[in-house]
Amino acid sequence: MKAKAGLKTKMSRMSLSDYLEKKREFFEKGLKNFFPSTFNEASIIQKSMEYSFFAGGKRFRPVLALTVCEALGKDKEDILPACLAIEMIHTYSLIHDDLPAMDNDDFRRGKPSNHKVFGEGMAILAGDGLLTEAFYIAARYPEKDNLVKGKLDFVKELANAAGIRGMVGGQVMDIDQGKEFNEDYLIKLHMAKTGAMIRVSALAPLIISEDYTYFSQVESYASSLGLLFQITDDILDVESSKDKLGKTTGKDIEQNKLTFVTLFGLDEAKKKAKEVLDKAVGYAEKIPDSYYLIELAKYIFSRDK
Amino acid sequence: MKAKAGLKTKMSRMSLSDYLEKKREFFEKGLKNFFPSTFNEASIIQKSMEYSFFAGGKRFRPVLALTVCEALGKDKEDILPACLAIEMIHTYSLIHDDLPAMDNDDFRRGKPSNHKVFGEGMAILAGDGLLTEAFYIAARYPEKDNLVKGKLDFVKELANAAGIRGMVGGQVMDIDQGKEFNEDYLIKLHMAKTGAMIRVSALAPLIISEDYTYFSQVESYASSLGLLFQITDDILDVESSKDKLGKTTGKDIEQNKLTFVTLFGLDEAKKKAKEVLDKAVGYAEKIPDSYYLIELAKYIFSRDK
Repeated sequence: MKAKAGLKTKMSRMSLSDYLEKKREFFEKGLKNFFPSTFNEASIIQKSMEYSFFAGGKRFRPVLALTVCEALGKDKEDILPACLAIEMIHTYSLIHDDLPAMDNDDFRRGKPSNHKVFGEGMAILAGDGLLTEAFYIAARYPEKDNLVKGKLDFVKELANAAGIRGMVGGQVMDIDQGKEFNEDYLIKLHMAKTGAMIRVSALAPLIISEDYTYFSQVESYASSLGLLFQITDDILDVESSKDKLGKTTGKDIEQNKLTFVTLFGLDEAKKKAKEVLDKAVGYAEKIPDSYYLIELAKYIFSRDK
Repeated sequence: MKAKAGLKTKMSRMSLSDYLEKKREFFEKGLKNFFPSTFNEASIIQKSMEYSFFAGGKRFRPVLALTVCEALGKDKEDILPACLAIEMIHTYSLIHDDLPAMDNDDFRRGKPSNHKVFGEGMAILAGDGLLTEAFYIAARYPEKDNLVKGKLDFVKELANAAGIRGMVGGQVMDIDQGKEFNEDYLIKLHMAKTGAMIRVSALAPLIISEDYTYFSQVESYASSLGLLFQITDDILDVESSKDKLGKTTGKDIEQNKLTFVTLFGLDEAKKKAKEVLDKAVGYAEKIPDSYYLIELAKYIFSRDK
C-alpha cells in the first residue's frame, strides 16, 4: 500500500479543498439511498429531521471517516452508512443543544433553529428520531454478511461515543462547568463532548473492516485533531470577532467560559495549537497514504472560520 | 418441547402474579450488572437517569420478553441485556413525553417527573443518555461470539421499533391527532406508539437466538396483546374514574381524544377487547409452553388498573 501511494507525486495530487469537496459529494450523493422515508402520517417529523440534516453543514466527521478510509485503502461504500449515522447523531445533538432548556439558540447556520420552525415538541422528537435512526442505519447497512461483526462493533463504539461516556456526558460537563477551572477538566470536557465522536468517525473504517493494524495511530491522530479543532475554535472566538464589525469581542471571555484562551491566554493557546498540530502530523505520518490527513490537520490549524 | 410442557399439570403451576413477580425479580437483579456507571463529572445525569429508571414501573416489556423466552425454552440470561435496553428506551420515552413542550406532566407514578427534579435541560439529556446507552448495551451484551448476528439483528429491530416508523412516529401521530378520527388511524397510531416496542420485546428471544420457528405466532400474539393493552387502557380511563371519588369522568372524552371508547362507545370497545383477547389466546396456543402467555393476555383483559 505504501509503495502504491508513493507512486503519486505531490504534483499530481489535487488540492485539499478539492479533495474535501469530492468526499462531501460522495457522502451527499450516497446518503440518499439510506436517509429514512417514513409513513405519511409522520411526515412532519421527516420534514423537521431533513430541515436540520440538510442545513449545509461542513460534514467534517463523514469527510474525516472517508479520508481515513482512503488512506488505508478500504472500500468507501462500506463505511458510507456509518458516515450517515455519525452525521445524523451530530445533527440531533445540535437540535437538542439549541433548545430553550439547553443553549437557547434561535439560529443555526444562519437559519432559524429547528424548534423555532417546528416547535419545541417536534424538535425534541426530531432529535430522538435522528438518534434512533442512526443506529438503525448503522446496524442494517451495508447488507453484507462479511460485515456483521464489524457493524455490531461499530454500533457499540458509536453508542459509547454518543452517550453518557461521550458526547452527552460532555454536554453535561459543559452545563456544569465553572465548578472546576483547569486544563484537566477542559480537556476531559472536550474529549467527551466533541472528541469521542471525532474519534469514532476516524476509526469507523477500521472497526467496520475489522482491520486494527493502524488502530493506535489513527486513534492518536483523531484525538489530536479533535483537540486542535477545539483550541482553534476557542482562538477564533476571540480573533475572528475582532475583525468583524459590530460584533463584541470575546463572547467566551465575557461569559467567563472555560476555554483554552480564557485559561491560558491567546499566545499560549496558539502555542498549544501548534504543538497539537505537530503531534497530529507525527501520528498521521505513521499511517500509509496520509497526505490528506496531514493536509487536513494543517488546514484546521490555520483556518480562519 | 410440547410434550415436556405437557408434563406440568395446571395444579403444579404457580399463579400468574407469582410468575410475573419472579420474572420482574430476575430482571431487577440481573440488570445491575449492565446498568451504566459513568465518570464522576457526569454523575448528575447518572442520578437523573436512575431516578426515572428505578421509579417502580411494571416492567411489562421485559417481563413479556422473559415469558416468551421461557415459553420457547431459550436461555433467559441471553436476553437480559435486551430487556434492559427495551426498558431504558421505554423510560427515556416517558421522560421526554412528560416535558413541558410535550405532554407537560408534572407527575409520573406518583413522583415529580424528571424535569421537575433535574430541570428540563438535564431531563432532555437523561432521555438522550438512556436511549443511546440502550443501544450500547444491546450491541455489547452478552459478550458471546455465537450471538453476534442475533445481537446485530436485535439492534436493528429495536431501532426500527423505537424510531420514526415506531414509537417516535406514533408520538408524532398522537400530537397530530384530531385530523383523522377513524379506526384505521387509531390502530396505526397505537401499533406505532406502543405496539412496535411490545412486538420487539416479544420477538427479542427469537431474534437474538436466530430461531424464527415461531416468529409469526409470537408476532401475532404480541400485536394482539399490544392492542388489547390499549383498548383496556381506554376503557379504564372511563370506568376506573367512575369509581374514584373526586375524579372527573372520562378525561379522554372531555378532551375529545381519539380512543376506542370515544370512537365506538364503551360497550362496543369491550366487545372489541374480548375479540382481541380471543385472537391473542388463539395465537398463543400455537406457541409451545404458552400457559403464562395465555394467562397474561387474560389478565390484561380483566385488569382493573
